[in-house]
Amino acid sequence: MTRGVGRRVPIAKLLETASVGNAVEVTGWIRTSRFSKNVSFVALYDGSSADTVQIVLGDETDEELKKRLGVGASLRVKGEWVASPGAGQAFEIRAQSIEVVGDCDASSYPLQKKSTSLEYLRTIAHLRPRSKTHQSVVRVRNALSWHIHKYFQDRGFHWIHTPIITASDAEGAGELFEVTAGDKEEGFFGKRTFLTVSGQLEVECFAQSHTDVYTFGPTFRAENSNTPRHAAEFWMIEPEMAFADLDDVIALAEDFVRTVARNVMDQLPGDFAFFEFVRTKLEKGPSLLEQLESAISQPFARVTYAEAQEILAKVDRKWEFPVGYGTSMQAEHERYLAEEHFQRPVFVTNYPRDQKAFYMRLDDGEQTVSATDLLVPRVGEMIGGSQREERFDKLVEQMEFHHTPPDDLWWYLELRQFGTTPHGGFGLGLERMLMWMTGIHNIRDSIPFPRTPGSAEF
Amino acid sequence: MTRGVGRRVPIAKLLETASVGNAVEVTGWIRTSRFSKNVSFVALYDGSSADTVQIVLGDETDEELKKRLGVGASLRVKGEWVASPGAGQAFEIRAQSIEVVGDCDASSYPLQKKSTSLEYLRTIAHLRPRSKTHQSVVRVRNALSWHIHKYFQDRGFHWIHTPIITASDAEGAGELFEVTAGDKEEGFFGKRTFLTVSGQLEVECFAQSHTDVYTFGPTFRAENSNTPRHAAEFWMIEPEMAFADLDDVIALAEDFVRTVARNVMDQLPGDFAFFEFVRTKLEKGPSLLEQLESAISQPFARVTYAEAQEILAKVDRKWEFPVGYGTSMQAEHERYLAEEHFQRPVFVTNYPRDQKAFYMRLDDGEQTVSATDLLVPRVGEMIGGSQREERFDKLVEQMEFHHTPPDDLWWYLELRQFGTTPHGGFGLGLERMLMWMTGIHNIRDSIPFPRTPGSAEF
Repeated sequence: MTRGVGRRVPIAKLLETASVGNAVEVTGWIRTSRFSKNVSFVALYDGSSADTVQIVLGDETDEELKKRLGVGASLRVKGEWVASPGAGQAFEIRAQSIEVVGDCDASSYPLQKKSTSLEYLRTIAHLRPRSKTHQSVVRVRNALSWHIHKYFQDRGFHWIHTPIITASDAEGAGELFEVTAGDKEEGFFGKRTFLTVSGQLEVECFAQSHTDVYTFGPTFRAENSNTPRHAAEFWMIEPEMAFADLDDVIALAEDFVRTVARNVMDQLPGDFAFFEFVRTKLEKGPSLLEQLESAISQPFARVTYAEAQEILAKVDRKWEFPVGYGTSMQAEHERYLAEEHFQRPVFVTNYPRDQKAFYMRLDDGEQTVSATDLLVPRVGEMIGGSQREERFDKLVEQMEFHHTPPDDLWWYLELRQFGTTPHGGFGLGLERMLMWMTGIHNIRDSIPFPRTPGSAEF
Repeated sequence: MTRGVGRRVPIAKLLETASVGNAVEVTGWIRTSRFSKNVSFVALYDGSSADTVQIVLGDETDEELKKRLGVGASLRVKGEWVASPGAGQAFEIRAQSIEVVGDCDASSYPLQKKSTSLEYLRTIAHLRPRSKTHQSVVRVRNALSWHIHKYFQDRGFHWIHTPIITASDAEGAGELFEVTAGDKEEGFFGKRTFLTVSGQLEVECFAQSHTDVYTFGPTFRAENSNTPRHAAEFWMIEPEMAFADLDDVIALAEDFVRTVARNVMDQLPGDFAFFEFVRTKLEKGPSLLEQLESAISQPFARVTYAEAQEILAKVDRKWEFPVGYGTSMQAEHERYLAEEHFQRPVFVTNYPRDQKAFYMRLDDGEQTVSATDLLVPRVGEMIGGSQREERFDKLVEQMEFHHTPPDDLWWYLELRQFGTTPHGGFGLGLERMLMWMTGIHNIRDSIPFPRTPGSAEF
């Protein structure tokens, strides 16, 4: 066995628990190495920590071995955990044996020590998780995903695997990828099928049987737009609650964002220190951590769409897009509300009926629906939710208003015939929340192998 | 707010924590109701527990209300938690107020009290999570998924979202769904794209940067075969470890199955009692729980493919498919080994090179590869894993042997040029493990909206 039991220890654990004098064994890849006549240093990472561990080699080290200790090589190191006399780290490993597991040719290695742009790294998506930025992105994305699951599991929500291949178009948006196999005329499934744009309609079936449920999976939009905020494939989380109204949805969304953000930051202080450093270098204004802490510690704001439009109309500013009741809120308006007017996350509620999907519940007066978007600084819309229309007749009316054929959704309508309940939920874009938390500007840098128009190399 | 704070309590929590005399409030759906002159009983479920809670209505209950308390109606009940004089439950709710939230017309409701077959339930996939069997399936599937994540997160593995839309065919199996959008000749992505059959090749990039990683997501096979074990869309878990060999992969797989199964069973004793009851009714031989407990408590067996073939050749039995070195192991052989010969889960290792995928590591002698399948009673293959070929030249040789063009996988080959490491992992089919744990025979009953040839209604 290469690993054996209790031998290899992740660097994160070593840094936390090792005592001076311990015999230790680590594996990883070289981030940097420095050689001098008497002593040499290798900084090793293994993905478990934002910190490297420093390996110290004495002057007896073989010269041929030293030549192989360049950036990118993989090593197995045995040695002693000692206090470090140098600046930059409290402890280090005095190497007793070093095995080069895999060499790395410095002249052809695409990831050199010198800083490499995020644009360049996108062309080497298979190697970029080794870069300092993506080492951290991967850890934060993992922790965020984990704490999202944990949040719902701690509260008795059931994770439901809604289908990826589907015959229905939940949003009616029409930007669908089609799925085919072989050359059967009627298709593999006997009808035209597409990649899901949302699991909401399907997960509602489970809210009507298990009360509190959520999806966590990939979703797809075949939008042919090359923006920093859109990808053709992204991950969504969609909680849904039975016996709940719009206030319950908003209460859940706020508690969710606050709790998950706090837990992710607490788990990875080193990575957030790194993103804080990067953002502070790049931009003016409140720092990333100041923004996150402030969002977490004070209640989110809440306004109706009508109130939001009044606020926007009063601003002395030249908007690119029109404002006023009935206009569609654009990114510039969303960011103004969150960043400047409220200076914190804000729920906008009760949008005009024609601006939102057919399944949202009609408010009294039937001009607006019980919808809400959560707008956050820098990112804009991070969450979109609603109370759903649970009344059979009103839902049919809403379908007709939105040109959604009720026959296609007979099963969805039946949920309203047999023990219907007021219910609602929201959709969170995982990448949006990751961008909000890390300060990353481009969705292509937030997901392992981004899928965008013209791009599916890996 | 419909829910308010601290009002509605899940039935599972109520059964665990309520004290006699407490004022309680529950919401849910009626499983059964019984009416008599002096007293009436309603059994309510909300998806949180295998048990219903009994609601007792006094003789003062309005007759019009009683008529609406049929199976399937949704209720909000307020009352007092009292000791139950009846058999079947220790406590019950003495109702003070009952609100029918959503009526359910008994004459048209497809889910009547009388037992309904699993085949019939497949035709009402939107309602079947309300049935007793699927109430439990949903909870076990959720708990299994959660404990799988927890297992890896507790051990420092990073969840990686490998792409669903891909240009590569990891297994070389060729049973691919194609993904298209619009009518651009060169396609949305500038090349032909497909639904992933495995995230392994992509997640290997992250094992070479973060050491311990895993995928958990949907995968697809366009196999036009209608069997109880195959679906076109299913969920896979694929851990991958750097600095690891086949022994490490096997040690991980065994500890994983044992730990996760134990934790899921401990979390849901009521649901496992139900599946035990169902299986005991249907079949002879060791009960479901006896099988699971025995698998968990003793070490799994391990044989090479060559040894397994010797065992099979010695059995005095008429096989449907041939046995002997070089033959392909079929379900009948896999089940014999796990159920009869070893009577526990068994790892079969070192398969002939031509029977396995190109990425598996050549053993010394180059006739076999460092592969392993875990066979379990009733289900057959539940896990397939291997040490990967980390040597550049050998990998090219393997690709040529298996007719996989190296140019298509230039990025995969580069992992072997820059700091390569011995590494490996396995793939677990979530539905296979769920079927093993619940005794469910048909994959269509293990996944919310199954996708099989000719079937994608919902």
